[in-house]
Amino acid sequence: MSSSSSLTPEALEQEIATQTTRFNELRLNPDKSVATPEALNEAKQKLAELKKALALAKNAGKEKVKKEGGVPAAKGPEQKKERLLLKTAKGTRDFGPAEMFCREHIERIVKECFTTYGGSCLDTPVFERKDVLTDKYGEDSKLIFDLKDQGGEELALRYDHTVPLARYIAMNGGTVTQHKIWQVGKVYRRDNPVVSKGRMREFTQADIDIVGLWDPMVPDAEILSLLCTILTKLDVGEFTIKLNNRKILDGIFEVCGVPADKIRTISSAVDKLDKAPWAEVKKEMTEEKGLDPAVADKIGEYVKLKGGEALLETLTADATLLGNARAKEGINEMGILFRLLKAYQVIDKILFDLSLARGLDYYTGIIYEAVVAASAPPAFNQANAFATGPASETPASSAAPTHAAPKKEKKPKKDAGPAAEDEHEIDESQVGVGSIAAGGRYDNLVSSFIAGANGILPGSKEYKKIPQMPCVGVSIGMDRIFALVWPKWVERSVRVKETMVYVISAGDGLLEERISLVRELREAGVKTDFLAKNKPKLNAQFAAGEKDEVPFAIIVGGEELAQGLVTVKEQRWELKEGKKVKIENEDKGVKVKRSELVDWLKNTQAWRERDVREWA
Amino acid sequence: MSSSSSLTPEALEQEIATQTTRFNELRLNPDKSVATPEALNEAKQKLAELKKALALAKNAGKEKVKKEGGVPAAKGPEQKKERLLLKTAKGTRDFGPAEMFCREHIERIVKECFTTYGGSCLDTPVFERKDVLTDKYGEDSKLIFDLKDQGGEELALRYDHTVPLARYIAMNGGTVTQHKIWQVGKVYRRDNPVVSKGRMREFTQADIDIVGLWDPMVPDAEILSLLCTILTKLDVGEFTIKLNNRKILDGIFEVCGVPADKIRTISSAVDKLDKAPWAEVKKEMTEEKGLDPAVADKIGEYVKLKGGEALLETLTADATLLGNARAKEGINEMGILFRLLKAYQVIDKILFDLSLARGLDYYTGIIYEAVVAASAPPAFNQANAFATGPASETPASSAAPTHAAPKKEKKPKKDAGPAAEDEHEIDESQVGVGSIAAGGRYDNLVSSFIAGANGILPGSKEYKKIPQMPCVGVSIGMDRIFALVWPKWVERSVRVKETMVYVISAGDGLLEERISLVRELREAGVKTDFLAKNKPKLNAQFAAGEKDEVPFAIIVGGEELAQGLVTVKEQRWELKEGKKVKIENEDKGVKVKRSELVDWLKNTQAWRERDVREWA
Repeated sequence: MSSSSSLTPEALEQEIATQTTRFNELRLNPDKSVATPEALNEAKQKLAELKKALALAKNAGKEKVKKEGGVPAAKGPEQKKERLLLKTAKGTRDFGPAEMFCREHIERIVKECFTTYGGSCLDTPVFERKDVLTDKYGEDSKLIFDLKDQGGEELALRYDHTVPLARYIAMNGGTVTQHKIWQVGKVYRRDNPVVSKGRMREFTQADIDIVGLWDPMVPDAEILSLLCTILTKLDVGEFTIKLNNRKILDGIFEVCGVPADKIRTISSAVDKLDKAPWAEVKKEMTEEKGLDPAVADKIGEYVKLKGGEALLETLTADATLLGNARAKEGINEMGILFRLLKAYQVIDKILFDLSLARGLDYYTGIIYEAVVAASAPPAFNQANAFATGPASETPASSAAPTHAAPKKEKKPKKDAGPAAEDEHEIDESQVGVGSIAAGGRYDNLVSSFIAGANGILPGSKEYKKIPQMPCVGVSIGMDRIFALVWPKWVERSVRVKETMVYVISAGDGLLEERISLVRELREAGVKTDFLAKNKPKLNAQFAAGEKDEVPFAIIVGGEELAQGLVTVKEQRWELKEGKKVKIENEDKGVKVKRSELVDWLKNTQAWRERDVREWA
Repeated sequence: MSSSSSLTPEALEQEIATQTTRFNELRLNPDKSVATPEALNEAKQKLAELKKALALAKNAGKEKVKKEGGVPAAKGPEQKKERLLLKTAKGTRDFGPAEMFCREHIERIVKECFTTYGGSCLDTPVFERKDVLTDKYGEDSKLIFDLKDQGGEELALRYDHTVPLARYIAMNGGTVTQHKIWQVGKVYRRDNPVVSKGRMREFTQADIDIVGLWDPMVPDAEILSLLCTILTKLDVGEFTIKLNNRKILDGIFEVCGVPADKIRTISSAVDKLDKAPWAEVKKEMTEEKGLDPAVADKIGEYVKLKGGEALLETLTADATLLGNARAKEGINEMGILFRLLKAYQVIDKILFDLSLARGLDYYTGIIYEAVVAASAPPAFNQANAFATGPASETPASSAAPTHAAPKKEKKPKKDAGPAAEDEHEIDESQVGVGSIAAGGRYDNLVSSFIAGANGILPGSKEYKKIPQMPCVGVSIGMDRIFALVWPKWVERSVRVKETMVYVISAGDGLLEERISLVRELREAGVKTDFLAKNKPKLNAQFAAGEKDEVPFAIIVGGEELAQGLVTVKEQRWELKEGKKVKIENEDKGVKVKRSELVDWLKNTQAWRERDVREWA
C-alpha cells in the first residue's frame, strides 16, 4: 500500500492500466503452472489496492483544493511543466511488433514477386526539391507536405514514387540500363485520414515500372501479370483489375464532340462514375462544365460499357469510333494486350471498363486499378449506376483513387484548402478501403523533366529531339493491403515471432552455460532466445518461451551438460475458440547430444514447416 | 483540323509532342501489319496539321499583342521556361539498382541477426510532433528538419530511432510485452554532408533496443554480442568496439573535483580526444570552460587509460575511485559485463577506453561505438594523443560521432547556425567514415516522456514513482557500412540481379510461347525474364541475358516445343583484370523435358549456390 498511496491520480491510473493488463495476461495464460490460483489472487488483490488508492488520491485532491481554496490549475503553472501530448502526428501511426510481422510478410511477398519478374530496386530520398514536384499532381498539389524554409533549398515530402522515378531517369539519361525498376517506401499527402481503412497521411507504396521503348503492349502485359501474381499470393480475396485506355477514352470524347480544351475536365467527371449515379455526373458535365447535353448523352452510352473481349469486339465493330485515329490506336492496343494476357493466363481477372478514367493527367495509354469486394464502401451498390449495364461482368468494384491515394470523400471547399484543421469528420463506416493498386502508361513524364532542365518548351523543335523514355507502372497500396490482411491474421491468431528455440536452465541459474548454448545455436542460424535473468524459475522461463509460441524448449542442467547432453521438448499450439492454446502432452523431452543438436533441430518437421512458412 | 484549330499554342505544343511520340512508335514498330504505310502516312499528316495549327495560333497571338499594343511578355527572354535544377536535395542521393542490390544484402543480414536474437520490428512515422523531439538532442537540436506550418500541428522529421522508440513505449505503457525491438529506416539531420563517406542529411540507421528491467548487464552483453555478430557477418574488415561506462566517467569527474554543473561540458571535451591531442582538450577545459588546471591534469591521467581486463583490475585497485559510489557501481557493472562477454566469446573485440564519452546526454550506463581501421580519417594517427598510452591495445580507432551521426568537422559559428547555406566546404580526403555503430544504456528517457505527459517535473516526488523502463540499444550506421562494403563489391564486380533464367526464342518470335514458359517458371519461383520484343534476334536475346549474368539461357524452338522439350544452356562468368567475362565453351546446351524443367534447374549447382548466397 505504501508504494501506491503516494502516487498522483494520473500515475495511479497508469498503474491500474498496467496491472489490469498483467492480470488479464495471467488469467489467459494457458500454462496453469504459472497462472496458479494464488498468483491470480495476488494480482487481483493488487489491482483492488490500486483502485482504492486512486479513490483516496482523488478525494485527497479535492480536499487539498478545498483547503487551499484555489483551483487545481493554480498549482500547475509554476510547478508543473506544460503537458506533452504523447501521440503521433495526425494521419500517421506506429506499427507495433505483431503488425510489423504481418507487414514484413506482405512486403517480402511483393519484393519477391518484383525480383521474380526481373525487377531491380531504386531508392530515392523521402524529400525532393519542391520544383521537381510542382505541376505534377493537378489540383491535388495542395496536398503536398512542404518542409520549413530553414535557409537553402525549398523542399517537400514526396507525394508518390512515380515522379521521383521519372526525375531519376531524366537525371541519368541513357545510362539507365535496368529497365524494370521497383521502389518500396513511404509517401505523403495532407489529406483527410481514415486510419482504420489504411488511408493515411503517411503511407507505404510499392511501385514497379518498366522503362524504355519495347514492343507494343509487352511491358503493359508484364505489369498486369505481375499485379495479378502479387494479389494472388497475398491473402486479399477475390480481386478484379479494371482496365481502360486513355487513347480510347479521348477518342470517345472527340467522336462525341467534346471540345479539345474540355477533354481533361470531362474525363475527371467520368472518373466519378464508380461512386455517383450517371444523372449526377451528367449534371456536372453539363451544368458545371458547360457541355452540350446531347454530347453528354453520347458519352453516357459509351462509358456504361464494361466487359471482356466481347466489349472489344463491340468497339471494333463501331465504325464511328474506328474513324478516330486515337481511338483506333487504343483499340488496336487493347487487341494486342488481350492476346498477351491470355498467354499470361490472367484474362479472367480483367474487366475492360470504359468508365475508368483515373485522375492523374500524365497517363497516355492503358490505365488500371485493382479492387476487391472487401474494399468497396457499404454504399457502393446504390452508387454504382451502371452495375446493371449491358456487358457488366464485374465481380467487385470500388472507389477509384488516383494512384492508390487516400480518396477524398467530399471535395473540400476551395478557399478552405487542406491546411485548415477544421476538416469535416469522415464517417469511417461509410468508407471502403478503395482500390488496392493502380497505375498506367505515362510516356511523356521523363521527357518533360529533360525539357524542363533544358528550358525547352513542350511542342518546340528542340522538344522533339529529346529521346523518348516511355514508362508503364503500378503502385500497390501497402497500407490498404495490410488493412485487408491483418484482420485475418488476428482471427487466426498468427504467431508474431520467428524464434525457434528457447534455452531454459533446470539448474541453479547457469547463466553463462545458457549464454554459451544460445551463442552456439545463433551462430548456426537458429533463432534462439533465453530469459535475461541470473536465476530464473523454471516456470517463468517456460512461460516466456510459450508467450512467443517458440516450438523448441531446450533445457540445460548441470549433470547433462557435463555429459554433453541437452533435453529438447517440442511444443505445439492449436487454435481453440479463437485463441492459441498449447497442446498439452506427457512428453518429458528427448535427450540430444549437444554436438548434434543443430542437425537434429534442422531435421524436425517443425523446422521444415518454418522454412516453408517463412519464404513462401 | 477543326479540333486542333481552336487549341491554345501551349495545348497544341503538348499535342504535337504526343503525336510525335505516336509517330515514332509506329515508325519503329516491327509489326508491319500495324505499322502499315497508310497508318504511317496518316500519323505524319496529323503531325503536319498540328504544326500548321500551331503556326497559325502563334501568329494570331502576335497579331493580338500588336493590336492591343501590349508587350509580348511570354515571348522574349521569357519564351523559355525557367530551367529546372535536376538534382536531389542537398545531402541526399538516389541509390540505383546496383547499389541497392548491395544495400538490400546488408539490410537482410542485419535484420536476420536481429530476429536471430529474438528481436521484433517496430515502425514509427518519419515525422513526429515537434515537442516530442524538443530537449532531446542538446545543442544538436538545431539540426532538426522542421516541416512547414501548413496549419495544424508543428512537425519535424525524426532525428534518430531512439526518441520515437521511447515515445512509443511511453504511449503504450505496460502493454509492451516484446522486449527486444528493432527498427530500420531513414533519419534526418541538417548537418554538413560528405556524401562519399556516407555522411548524409538523410541516412539509414538500423537500431535494436532491449527494453525492460532485467538482471544486471545481461541485455548490455546481448547487444554487444549482437553488434559483433552483425559486424562479423558484414564484410567491413577488422573492427573494435570501444566501451566505457558513464557511471565510471562521472565518478572520475567527481573524484578529480569537477563541479557538478560542469560535468556534462567537461565530458564533451573528453569526447574530442579521439581526434584532438590532450593539450588542446586541456586548453578547452581550462581556458574555455574554466576548469582548474590541476583538476584537468587529474582527469588526463584517467582518460588516457585504454585496455581490456587489465584496466578493470587497475580501476578495481584504485581506492580513491572505489570510494565514489557511482564509480564503484560502474566498476562492478563492468566486472559482470566482462564475465558475460567471455561467455559470448566477443571479449577480444572490446576495448575498454576511458576517453570515450559520447555526445548524447541521455546515456546512464555503458556507452560504446564500433570503429574499423578503414573508417578513420587519414590524420587519425597524429591526432590520437594517447595512441602510445600505457594500456593501449587498440587495433583501430576513429572519429566518434553521437549515435552514428554525421560528425561535424568544425563547430559552425553559433550565430550562423546550420541554416546558413554558406557552410564551409569539407575536405573529403581528410574525413573518415567515422564510427559505424554506436549506442548505450539510457534508463530515464521513457520515464521522462511519461513525466512530460503527466506534467510531472523531473526530480519531483511524483517523478520517482513513475515505473522505470530501462533501455539499452545500438544504432548501426547503414550508409557508413555501405560506404565500406560497396567499393569491395565494385572491385569484385558483383552481379546486381537475382534472375536465374532468360528465356530465348530460336524461332520466329514465338512471343506467346516465351511468355507461357516464363509464366510457368515464375509461378514455380524461378526468377525469369525475357526480351520484350515481338521478333528479337537470337544474339540480342543472349546479350540481354548476359548483361545481367543470368546463369541459365533456356531456348525455345518450334519443333522442340511440340515435343515438350527445351534447350538449357548454362553460363558462367569469371573475373578477369577487374572485369566480369563470360567463360566461353563449346557446350550446345542440354535438352530437358519441359515438364521436368523446374526440378532439373533446382538440382543444379548454380541453383544451390544461389540459395547459399541469397540467404547467407
